[in-house]
Amino acid sequence: MSTFRIVLAYDGTDYIGWQRQASGTSIQGLIEDALRELDGRDVSVAGAGRTDAGVHALGQVASFSLERTIEPLTVLRSLNAKLPADIRVRTAETAPPDFHARFDARAKTYRYRIWNGEVVNPFERRYVWHMVSPLDVEAMASAARILEGTHDFAAFQGAGSDASTTVRTITQSTIESIQPTIQSAVRDPQSALIEFTIAGDGFLRHMVRAIVGSLVEIGRGRQPASWLGEVLASRRRERAGQTAPPHGLALVAVDYGARLAAEP
Amino acid sequence: MSTFRIVLAYDGTDYIGWQRQASGTSIQGLIEDALRELDGRDVSVAGAGRTDAGVHALGQVASFSLERTIEPLTVLRSLNAKLPADIRVRTAETAPPDFHARFDARAKTYRYRIWNGEVVNPFERRYVWHMVSPLDVEAMASAARILEGTHDFAAFQGAGSDASTTVRTITQSTIESIQPTIQSAVRDPQSALIEFTIAGDGFLRHMVRAIVGSLVEIGRGRQPASWLGEVLASRRRERAGQTAPPHGLALVAVDYGARLAAEP
Repeated sequence: MSTFRIVLAYDGTDYIGWQRQASGTSIQGLIEDALRELDGRDVSVAGAGRTDAGVHALGQVASFSLERTIEPLTVLRSLNAKLPADIRVRTAETAPPDFHARFDARAKTYRYRIWNGEVVNPFERRYVWHMVSPLDVEAMASAARILEGTHDFAAFQGAGSDASTTVRTITQSTIESIQPTIQSAVRDPQSALIEFTIAGDGFLRHMVRAIVGSLVEIGRGRQPASWLGEVLASRRRERAGQTAPPHGLALVAVDYGARLAAEP
Repeated sequence: MSTFRIVLAYDGTDYIGWQRQASGTSIQGLIEDALRELDGRDVSVAGAGRTDAGVHALGQVASFSLERTIEPLTVLRSLNAKLPADIRVRTAETAPPDFHARFDARAKTYRYRIWNGEVVNPFERRYVWHMVSPLDVEAMASAARILEGTHDFAAFQGAGSDASTTVRTITQSTIESIQPTIQSAVRDPQSALIEFTIAGDGFLRHMVRAIVGSLVEIGRGRQPASWLGEVLASRRRERAGQTAPPHGLALVAVDYGARLAAEP
């Protein structure tokens, strides 16, 4: 019996999300199906973050145990041979027997991308939220920073959540405006790729997307930058902006501290 | 009657190529269908490069004439509203009445990308040729350079071509190895994105892909770098490597000289 830790990247466009559900194709379900073939028995897989339908991952981490003695590189190759091309195992390694991808996670980093311009780059269309009207990136960036620290994020929690506490510690909440280059496909002086990066010890259901929906209210000039602090302090979901669509979001990395560093 | 010039980007994955054909969905066909609705009559569209099935474009250029008086920005927005999201009109402008996107093109730039590593980035899977075994990029780069200049490229011409001459002038033929960054999705020290850029006054059918197939023979160590010059001099297609798959290829830009610069 060996425990494994794998790092995954996936294009979430065509999936119902990480978590196996009664109907629809989930990433967890596909990996469990592939591991059942590999180990000859049912294998249960734990994922660090339960990404929603349409949300992507660059560095999702998952753990599982196999009864058969199999080399990590064989696990990686077998999984990649069985999984569809939009889900890839980037690395596989053995882990301590008690390692659990979700319970042992110390921090996670998410990224949300907004394509701000008249014409969205067709190569990025599945991975960005397209907004035509120019956004005030400086106002959004200054608002985003107030989320850093330990706060009660109840105002940004989606319905149907069962979190015991809504207090979370955010270590990074920054916004960058990136001029798209020919490298990333289509350069256009009129457009910008706005990238929101948020890292913390945990995230409530739909929290990143509710924050992005609120930041966009500020970017559009409908609210001043200071409004985000008022929303946070109110702890009331109806004060915040709408939930941004899932396809701009990606789980970038999961941090397990010095013992098990997992950087993409 | 006004003549227009539009610059297009498209993900060619789901199309039979630029050119309208008896069956299948072509990019030209979709644009002509959209323009028929806009102008109330049949409109014929000329494209600078006839990209094959599965080949992409960052800066394809097309020209057409409309009878109705329509602002270029309205043309752009109407086309983008009617076209699927994987085809985007990046810019639209009026052009001299005699402008023809294909006949007036002075030069074109193509790019071919190879993902060289164990695991292909799932976000790039439609836009790269995946090769697992490490390629000798230096040997490929040194071979690529010998194509620069005016040569007879008959050795790299696909079957079924009706070109009157196989002599072409290549102004750039370079290879770069790019370390993928988290920005472009998944960073992996073991893998590299190998980018071949070729610019010239014209390209024969399947020419770029036949050159890439030959460069890969060198990258794999099956042939020395000097072999490419021998293949070129032989003018015999059977001496060259196989035609590389279409999905790594993109038409980057079309140059019309000083009068009508079209850079992406």
